[in-house]
Amino acid sequence: MKALVHVTLKADVLDPQGKAIAHACAALGHGAVEGVRQGKLFEIEISAPDEAAARGVAAEVSEKLLANPVIEDYAILRIEP
Amino acid sequence: MKALVHVTLKADVLDPQGKAIAHACAALGHGAVEGVRQGKLFEIEISAPDEAAARGVAAEVSEKLLANPVIEDYAILRIEP
Repeated sequence: MKALVHVTLKADVLDPQGKAIAHACAALGHGAVEGVRQGKLFEIEISAPDEAAARGVAAEVSEKLLANPVIEDYAILRIEP
Repeated sequence: MKALVHVTLKADVLDPQGKAIAHACAALGHGAVEGVRQGKLFEIEISAPDEAAARGVAAEVSEKLLANPVIEDYAILRIEP
């Protein structure tokens, strides 16, 4: 099964990379862009018997490896068969 | 409005970062993880009158700035008010 996981900086944490992208957008004529925050996306192939088991593995891996819980949040977007 | 954009490597392009993460998962006891591919996630704040306009800006910015169309695909996941 395939899990799709988002890892994003917590709202209170500054995102200089996103700021730089937003500045670049403005400088290149995309004035409608008011702000950007960048996060990470993980597509995880999991061998699991059902969706609940796959979700469990995805949550464990996200919490322990993919996200830094001090400054980042993770969300399991969806589990695909 | 807020646009959520995924940028992922095309399926044919090798992802050494994802491979390294998958190896780390296995080494740390998460044997159920068979593979990982890493991508990027962008939350873009756009000043636009409606969803269609916001989608247009998001597509333009994604195509010209956020994704490298030679090796990456982008997808506009959703537009939020």
